[in-house]
Amino acid sequence: MNFKIQKRMFNNVLAVVAKAISNSAPIPSLSGVKITVSEENVTFIGSDSNISIKTVKLPSDELVIVEEGEAVIDIRYISEIVRKIDSDMVNVEIIDGTLCKISGNKSEFKINGMRPSDYPNINFDHSSDFFELDVKKFSDLVHRTVFACSDQQIRQALTGLNLKTEGDKLVASATDSYRLSSMKIDFVKNGDFNITIPSKIISETCNIMADEKKIRVYIDKNKAFFNSDETTVLTRLIEDAFPNTSHLLNIASTQVLQIDARSLQDAVDRASFIKSDGKSVVKLKINTDSLEVSSSSQEIGSSHEVLSIASYSGEPLVISCSGKYLSDAIKALRSDVMTMSFKGESKPIIILSPEDPDIIEYISPVRTYN
Amino acid sequence: MNFKIQKRMFNNVLAVVAKAISNSAPIPSLSGVKITVSEENVTFIGSDSNISIKTVKLPSDELVIVEEGEAVIDIRYISEIVRKIDSDMVNVEIIDGTLCKISGNKSEFKINGMRPSDYPNINFDHSSDFFELDVKKFSDLVHRTVFACSDQQIRQALTGLNLKTEGDKLVASATDSYRLSSMKIDFVKNGDFNITIPSKIISETCNIMADEKKIRVYIDKNKAFFNSDETTVLTRLIEDAFPNTSHLLNIASTQVLQIDARSLQDAVDRASFIKSDGKSVVKLKINTDSLEVSSSSQEIGSSHEVLSIASYSGEPLVISCSGKYLSDAIKALRSDVMTMSFKGESKPIIILSPEDPDIIEYISPVRTYN
Repeated sequence: MNFKIQKRMFNNVLAVVAKAISNSAPIPSLSGVKITVSEENVTFIGSDSNISIKTVKLPSDELVIVEEGEAVIDIRYISEIVRKIDSDMVNVEIIDGTLCKISGNKSEFKINGMRPSDYPNINFDHSSDFFELDVKKFSDLVHRTVFACSDQQIRQALTGLNLKTEGDKLVASATDSYRLSSMKIDFVKNGDFNITIPSKIISETCNIMADEKKIRVYIDKNKAFFNSDETTVLTRLIEDAFPNTSHLLNIASTQVLQIDARSLQDAVDRASFIKSDGKSVVKLKINTDSLEVSSSSQEIGSSHEVLSIASYSGEPLVISCSGKYLSDAIKALRSDVMTMSFKGESKPIIILSPEDPDIIEYISPVRTYN
Repeated sequence: MNFKIQKRMFNNVLAVVAKAISNSAPIPSLSGVKITVSEENVTFIGSDSNISIKTVKLPSDELVIVEEGEAVIDIRYISEIVRKIDSDMVNVEIIDGTLCKISGNKSEFKINGMRPSDYPNINFDHSSDFFELDVKKFSDLVHRTVFACSDQQIRQALTGLNLKTEGDKLVASATDSYRLSSMKIDFVKNGDFNITIPSKIISETCNIMADEKKIRVYIDKNKAFFNSDETTVLTRLIEDAFPNTSHLLNIASTQVLQIDARSLQDAVDRASFIKSDGKSVVKLKINTDSLEVSSSSQEIGSSHEVLSIASYSGEPLVISCSGKYLSDAIKALRSDVMTMSFKGESKPIIILSPEDPDIIEYISPVRTYN
């Protein structure tokens, strides 16, 4: 194996595949980047077995193929070398077995690689059916929902973001069973699907694809492929069925509040630092004129403030919920004004944006005794 | 106790005293800021018993004294409140025992304070003898030497920065017994002294005083006071005697190298990522034409590069030392060209700047067997 590559290109491609490489790799060879040089191109692969990334580079002024071959090199070592090397073009060459020489102008490194035969065979083949996504719209969809995923591994399905078709829309939903964030976007679909992708992996995929405009998505039985021109991200799917959440959102409300989102956000953030047992619970006391936001803890003390509201219909209400969940929901809404619908103090709060009917937030109330 | 203070001023003063407050305070009340309101001023104190900070604010448009008194409030809570509060002026008032009300425009917090009588009595009285320091010059002196302190608690004296008078100069020295960094600055002295201040504390003191021009320093038996107009930093001194290091630096060299500092720095940084047992050792092979910098580790591999030099006198030499120590020393030198003096492969390396005779770096070599 022998090729020359521009330092900046090498840095970039290593940074991309490094996103799939774990510090605590399940098998030693997965701590490395696999480089395969063929007559046509150079392929870089990184994987932690849950997410795998492949980037293919074609020969150019920035990439010169000298000799075919393959190598697996610890991502930390090669990244560090390429960052620091003293020339614009970097030469990478297997000189003996797995010993890889990486040289710049005057500086030269000989790094012990790993055996390519020990690297797991990662199958990047996929069905030919795909749909296309606008990266910006898709990233938006992910970021405004994925925060509601559970971080408890007990119910696998809740640790992932559910993506499914609903009519001509793509719906993303995440829930930890105490809250739910769900959002729809328009897209040109190609068949129906209903998949759940681990939350970290789908967020990472959006980061990796951030510089692209459009990506193609291929869905197979237990994996999904996100494809740009040069890079393919292969993600594991969660096999457990995602719960049906549509009934949660069909609650006939008895009380409806409209309020400036920013002022509620600020008040909730202020109140939330007062935690009991590490949890922030904010109490909302609502009547036709105002909303009182308060919090208290035996240990720390209490907070209290009164906000003016845009409108309120229904009986006066006192309801408590997680300050963090409410704050997260308001942030995801990205709306100037927000609508909160209630059905008494013990039923969930539904939060909507009058400006955007395609996003909905759901929060279970917390029972308090003071 | 009752006073009003401008949010920004309050934020700033809390940020300053917070630098002395530890997350794991040795006694509970030290997790708080002590606020004392008198007729003349408001005093804020933070301490972890090694370093104590006092800031005194006089009444002004930004600070209105309403009623005398004192309070001790957890620094985390009060900092968070002041950061988030919804008004430009903040009202702080004891309303019941140790219960402290902090209020802004609409938002209001009642925080359980601690008993001021439980707060240790910190004596900020000092002798009247002082000398004055230019903050920028002093910070420079500290930053270019303190890195060489030991982080091993076994020999207390080596965990501190030694500051002493030498003629009309102030000399700072730090050593972990394998390396030494020593630097002098001019100052107007007022009596002789020889003190050692814990490394973290002297660095923190420089940070706290960073916005000042001049500070006054008072030295007492086992403490030092750094004084600006509003703020006093009281630091504990290390009582163990700092070793006499002057003989270390008087080595008759047999080999002298002059080299461009930046290119050696870069080469050493490149070589240093190859670590054996977590330590980077770089090997320098010097002759009249060139300097070879190399490193190797059984596990990772090896690096090698050849640098051109400005001049070399003496027998050819192969010597090894810590890559980190060499890199730190070159950084501290801040010189375009550097002089390295050797007396064979087993005696210390002395590093000097031809541009600045007031800084000297000393590094013990490492014995290698390959």
